Amino acid sequence: MLNEKAVKKADFDEIDTQAVTAVRMLSMDMISRARSGHPGLPLGVSPMAYVLFSRHLRIDPSFPQWFNRDRFVLSAGHGSAMLYSLLYLSGFALSKSDLMNFRQVGSKTPGHPEHGVTPGVDATTGPLGQGIGMAVGMAMAEMHLGAEYNRAEYHVVDHYTYAICGDGDLMEGVAAESASLAGQLKLNKLIVLYDSNDVSLDGPLSNACHDDVAGRFESYGWNYLRVADGNDLDAIDTAINTAKDNQSGPTLIEVKTVIGAGSPHQGTNKVHGAPLNAEDLAATREFYNWDNDPFTVPATVTERFQSTVKSRGWASHQEWSNLVTRYSAVEPTLAAQFAQGISQSLPADYTASLPTYYKKDALASRASGHEILQRLSAACPNLWGGSADLFSSNKTNVVDEDRFSRDNPTGKNLWFGVREFAEAAAMNGIALHGGTRVYGSTFFVFSDYMKPAIRLAALQKLPVTYVFTHDSLAVGEDGPTHEPVEQLAALRSIPGLTVYRPADGNETVAAWEQAISATDHPTAIILTRQGLPTLPKPAAKVRAGVKRGGYVVADAQHEAEGILMASGSEVKLAVDAQQRLAEIGHDVRVVSIPSFEKFSTQSADYQESVLPKHLRRRVAVEMASGASWYRYVGLDGIALTQEHFGASGNGTAVVEMAGFTAENVVQAYLDLL
Amino acid sequence: MLNEKAVKKADFDEIDTQAVTAVRMLSMDMISRARSGHPGLPLGVSPMAYVLFSRHLRIDPSFPQWFNRDRFVLSAGHGSAMLYSLLYLSGFALSKSDLMNFRQVGSKTPGHPEHGVTPGVDATTGPLGQGIGMAVGMAMAEMHLGAEYNRAEYHVVDHYTYAICGDGDLMEGVAAESASLAGQLKLNKLIVLYDSNDVSLDGPLSNACHDDVAGRFESYGWNYLRVADGNDLDAIDTAINTAKDNQSGPTLIEVKTVIGAGSPHQGTNKVHGAPLNAEDLAATREFYNWDNDPFTVPATVTERFQSTVKSRGWASHQEWSNLVTRYSAVEPTLAAQFAQGISQSLPADYTASLPTYYKKDALASRASGHEILQRLSAACPNLWGGSADLFSSNKTNVVDEDRFSRDNPTGKNLWFGVREFAEAAAMNGIALHGGTRVYGSTFFVFSDYMKPAIRLAALQKLPVTYVFTHDSLAVGEDGPTHEPVEQLAALRSIPGLTVYRPADGNETVAAWEQAISATDHPTAIILTRQGLPTLPKPAAKVRAGVKRGGYVVADAQHEAEGILMASGSEVKLAVDAQQRLAEIGHDVRVVSIPSFEKFSTQSADYQESVLPKHLRRRVAVEMASGASWYRYVGLDGIALTQEHFGASGNGTAVVEMAGFTAENVVQAYLDLL
Repeated sequence: MLNEKAVKKADFDEIDTQAVTAVRMLSMDMISRARSGHPGLPLGVSPMAYVLFSRHLRIDPSFPQWFNRDRFVLSAGHGSAMLYSLLYLSGFALSKSDLMNFRQVGSKTPGHPEHGVTPGVDATTGPLGQGIGMAVGMAMAEMHLGAEYNRAEYHVVDHYTYAICGDGDLMEGVAAESASLAGQLKLNKLIVLYDSNDVSLDGPLSNACHDDVAGRFESYGWNYLRVADGNDLDAIDTAINTAKDNQSGPTLIEVKTVIGAGSPHQGTNKVHGAPLNAEDLAATREFYNWDNDPFTVPATVTERFQSTVKSRGWASHQEWSNLVTRYSAVEPTLAAQFAQGISQSLPADYTASLPTYYKKDALASRASGHEILQRLSAACPNLWGGSADLFSSNKTNVVDEDRFSRDNPTGKNLWFGVREFAEAAAMNGIALHGGTRVYGSTFFVFSDYMKPAIRLAALQKLPVTYVFTHDSLAVGEDGPTHEPVEQLAALRSIPGLTVYRPADGNETVAAWEQAISATDHPTAIILTRQGLPTLPKPAAKVRAGVKRGGYVVADAQHEAEGILMASGSEVKLAVDAQQRLAEIGHDVRVVSIPSFEKFSTQSADYQESVLPKHLRRRVAVEMASGASWYRYVGLDGIALTQEHFGASGNGTAVVEMAGFTAENVVQAYLDLL
Repeated sequence: MLNEKAVKKADFDEIDTQAVTAVRMLSMDMISRARSGHPGLPLGVSPMAYVLFSRHLRIDPSFPQWFNRDRFVLSAGHGSAMLYSLLYLSGFALSKSDLMNFRQVGSKTPGHPEHGVTPGVDATTGPLGQGIGMAVGMAMAEMHLGAEYNRAEYHVVDHYTYAICGDGDLMEGVAAESASLAGQLKLNKLIVLYDSNDVSLDGPLSNACHDDVAGRFESYGWNYLRVADGNDLDAIDTAINTAKDNQSGPTLIEVKTVIGAGSPHQGTNKVHGAPLNAEDLAATREFYNWDNDPFTVPATVTERFQSTVKSRGWASHQEWSNLVTRYSAVEPTLAAQFAQGISQSLPADYTASLPTYYKKDALASRASGHEILQRLSAACPNLWGGSADLFSSNKTNVVDEDRFSRDNPTGKNLWFGVREFAEAAAMNGIALHGGTRVYGSTFFVFSDYMKPAIRLAALQKLPVTYVFTHDSLAVGEDGPTHEPVEQLAALRSIPGLTVYRPADGNETVAAWEQAISATDHPTAIILTRQGLPTLPKPAAKVRAGVKRGGYVVADAQHEAEGILMASGSEVKLAVDAQQRLAEIGHDVRVVSIPSFEKFSTQSADYQESVLPKHLRRRVAVEMASGASWYRYVGLDGIALTQEHFGASGNGTAVVEMAGFTAENVVQAYLDLL
C-alpha cells in the first residue's frame, strides 16, 4: 500500500496550481456552455477538492465501484460541475463531450450529481444536508464491515469517507442529527470539509445564521480543524492528514473560502447560482491567467492527475484484490459471506425458517414482523438495522444481537436516537456503501420526518427496508398526532418505492420476502399495533398473492356480482362484509391489495382476472386518506377512506367512530345497487 | 402589574411541595385510569412545571386566549397528563371528570395536547422537536408585534414564551434548526426548560446520544443555565428569573431530573410510556406520602393555585385590558390595525389593488405571485413571511420591507436560512400566537422537508400560507432532485390543507385571495418557474372558478362529447388539445381543477355541472404522480400523469420527453374512442 504519510508537505508545485485552475475553469466552461449552473462553489472549493483527490482519495477511475475505495460525497451537490471536472481529469469514463453536455437531457453530467448516472459519483446529492447523512451511513458501514470481516493482517474493509459541504448543508436539521449520530458512534474515519464562505443564496450568511460551527461540532464529539485560507494547498493537506490520524471521532475541517473566487462578483451571492456572463467569464479567465481553449487543459495537468489519483487508486485496488485472494484462502467462509454481502445476494435457504400463520393466530403484524425479523437475521448474516428510539414499540430489535457502537462495532441493532431523518439518510449511505442489507423503523406517522431521504432512496434505487409500525387510526390513545392518515398516499406516490400494507402474518412474511430480495428499489412495510386475524386462505397462496401486489383473498361462492377490496387491517372488514352480503343474497369477491405498486405493474390479464372490468359494483375500504382507490373503484364505485384526522381514544372505538365497520362496508355495497 | 421580582427566593413552603405532589399524583391517577399514558415525565418534571406555573406564567385561566398571555408549549407532548393536571388546578375549564376521561374518545384530555381541544393548550405537540419550533415562532411573533405596536408606556405586546422539552425533542433536527434560528434572532424572551433525565424510550440516552447540550446551545447563541436537582424549587425559580433578566438571547435551562421519580422503576425506560401497575402505583403514592383519594387534592393546594396562577393572571389581564383601552384612545389607527391582526380580519379593500392578467401576458406564476404579494403586503399591514434562503428564486420577498431581525424587528421579510422544517414549525408558532398572517416559501420539492409541520398546521387549523415555487419537471436543469413529482399527491392527501396549483396569473390571484382570507386551514400555492400563458377566459370568471376549486375553462363549441381536465401548467395543453380535437371533429370541454379540496366539497350539482356523469370519455393530464385523477376519470378514462422521477435538461425538453404534449393529450382522447 502506498504510504501516504511519505508525501511531504509543501510539495505542491506549479502544476498543482495549474491543476486547481483547470478544475475551476473546466467548471466555468461547463456552466457557461449550459447557460445554467452554480459557478460560486467550484471557484471557491476547487483547491480543497484538488488536494483531496490528488493527495488522499483512494479511488480507481477504471473501476469506480471498487469496494474498498474511499467514499466521497459532494453534499453541496450544486457544485456538480466541479465534481465532473475532477472525475474527468482523474480518468473516469467521462469524455470532454460529456462535460460539454452538462445539464442536458440524457447526459452523464446532470445538474446535480446522480449516483448510477455518472461513474465516480458515490451519492445523489442536491437536497441539502442529506449528503452528510449519507456520508455518516457510509462510515457506519465501513466500521461495521471492518469489524465483521477484517482479520489480523487482512483488512479487507479499511477506507475513509470524505464529504464536502457548505453553509446550507450545515443549517439543515438532517445534518445536525447526522453529525450528532456520527459523534455518538465516534466515526473517526469520517472527514467532512466545510466550504465556509459566509454567503448563502439570498445574501450574507450572517443574515440567516450565527452558529459557532466549531463549538457546535465539538458539542457533537467531533474534532474541529480550521484552514484560514482556502487556497492554501499545504494547509488543507495538513488538515486532512491530521484528521486521518485522529482516532477519537469524526473531523470537520472548516476551510475559509471566497465564493466565486477570482470572478468579478466574488464574495457575494450574485455568483452562487447563475452562470457568469461573457464579460465576467473573460475577467475570471484573466484573473487566473488561463488562456486555454474552453474544455481544454494542459497535458501536464492531465498527467498530474494520472500520476496521483489514478496511479494511487490502481495500486491500492490491486493490492486489495491480492489481499482478498489471500483472505479467501485463509477465511473461506467469511470471504464467501463477505462476497455475498457485496453482491447483494442472499443465502439460498433464507426463507426456510420463515414462520407460517394459521387460522387460530391473531397477531399484530408488528409482532409477526418481530418473529420474521429474528428468523431473517439468523439466516442472513449481512442484515442489520434499527429504530429511531422506538424499537421497543416497533419490535424491530434482534434479540440475539448487540447494539452497534464504537466499542461493539459488530453489533447489529442500530440505535439511531430520536433522529428519523438521519436514520433514513444513514440507511441510504449504508446501502450506497454496500456489503450489508439495512432496515430502519419508526412509527408510521413519523415517516413524514424521513420523507426527503425516502425519496433519495427511491431515486438512487437503494434496496433499503422501512418498517413502519402503528398503522392507522387504530393506534388509538396516542391520538391524531400519532395516527397516520395521509402517509400511505404519500408513500404510494413516490416513484420507485414499493409499499406493502399486509393484512395478516402471512402477508407480512411475503412483504419481508419481497423487501429483502429487492436489489433496485426501497420497500416500506406498514405494520399494525392491533391484532390481525389470519386470512381464510392457505399461507402459500397468500404469499404468492402478495408477490403480485393484489389477489383474490376470498372469492364469490358462485358468480361474483361485485367486488370488495381493501388492504391491511381492512381486509378483515371486507371478508366479514362478504359473509353478511352472502347471507342477504349478494355474492361478492374480496380482493386484497397489499401493494399498489406491485399490482399495477402486473400484466393486464392478471389485473383483469382479479378485477374483471365488467364488475362495476365495487367498494374499497382503507383507513387512510387519498383517492388512490378510485383507480380501482372508478366513477361508479365507493371508496370508504379516511379524509379527516383521527382522534384520541381506545383504538377500537376510534376506528368504529370513523365508520370502519363491516356494517358500513355492507351498506356501501347496498348503496350501489 | 405584579412585580415578580418581589417574590422572594426560598419562599416555597410545604403547600408548594404538596402542590407538586398533587400534580404528580393527579397525572398518575389519569394514566392509571386510562390504562394508557406516560408516567415518566410527570413524575420527573412536575417540580419545574409547578414553579413555572405558580411563580411565572402570566395566563388567565378564565380567558385562555388572552392575547398578551405568556405562551407555554409542552414540547414533550407525551407528558400531557401533567399539563392537564396543571391546567385543572389552575382553574381552566377542565373538570375532574375531564381528567378521569383522559385519552377517551371525545374527551378534552386527549393522549397528546391538542390546541383547540383543551383550554390552555397553546400548541398541539407530540411529534418531537416541533414544540420547540413553534415556541420559536411564538417568540418571533412577540418580538415583531411588540416592535410594531408598542409605544412609549403602552407595551401592548410584552410576554415570555416558555417551553418544556426532553431529550427526544433535542435530538430532532427541527429542534436544532429552530434553536439556531432563535439564536440568530436573539429571541431573549424565549425560555426553554430541558427535562434532562438521561433516559430515552429504548434505554439509556447515552446509547443513542452524547451531545454536550450546553456547548451545543451556546454555539447557537443561547444562554445556558443548569439546575442540578430537578426537585429544587428554589434553584428552578432562580434559573427562570435569571433567564427572564437576560437580554442577549434565548435561554435553555437544563434541569437534571429522574424519569419516573418516586416510582419503583425510576431512572429507567420502563417508566417512560406504560402505566404503573397497581403495585407500583401504590408504592409511588407511599413514597410521596400521598393518601388522598384518586383525583382528589387538598383544598390548600387548590387555593395555592388560585392565589398564584389565577390571581396573577387575572390581575395581569385586567391591567392589560386597561392599557389597551388607553392605547386605543391615544393610538386609534394602530389600535385598530392591532385588533384587526388579532381577529384575523383583513382590510375591507385589500383585493382592490390585485393585478389582472390579460391574454397577452405569459408570466411564470412565481412572477405573478411576486406582483400579487407586493400588493397584498401594501394592503395588509399584518402580513409577513419569508423563505428558507430561496426568496431570490421563490420571488417571495417584499421589496418595500426590511429583513426581520433583533435590530430591525419591524422587518417583514423573514430569513429562515436553509431550515425548511424550522420555517414551517415557526410559521405554526406565529399563527398560534396570532396577531399577524404569515407565509413561507421554498422550492416545491423541498416541501418534503416541511411535511411534519404542514401536518401540524392542518391538524391545528392554522391559516398559514405556503408558497412553493419550481413546480414539476419543468424545473429542468436542476434535475430530478429538484423536480417535484409526488409532492402534489402528498399535499393533497393531508386532511385540512387546501392546495392550489394555478394555471395562470389570474388563477394565482384567486389562490392568494383564498389563502389570505382563510381562517381555519393552511393553504399551499404551487407556482411555476416557467411562463404560463393567460387562460382564454375573463379574469373575473377565472377567479370565480378557482373559488370553487374546479370549473369549465373552455367549453365545447356545441355539445361536449368528452372532457379534458388538468391543473396548473397542463391546462394550457388541454386547451391546445381541445383546439386540435375540434379540428378533427371532436367537440370536448376543458376543465381546470386548481384545487381538488375545494372542488370535492362543492355541491353535487355543481360538480355534476362541471363534470357531467354521462360523459365518460375523460382525459386528465398533470405532471405529477399519484392516482388522484382517477376519481374524476374513472375506469374508462385516461390519466396522463408522471410516475417516474424527472431528468436534468432544458425544462421544455424534459417535459416533452416525459410525454406532456398537446399531441399526447389528443392521442389519449382518441384512444378512448
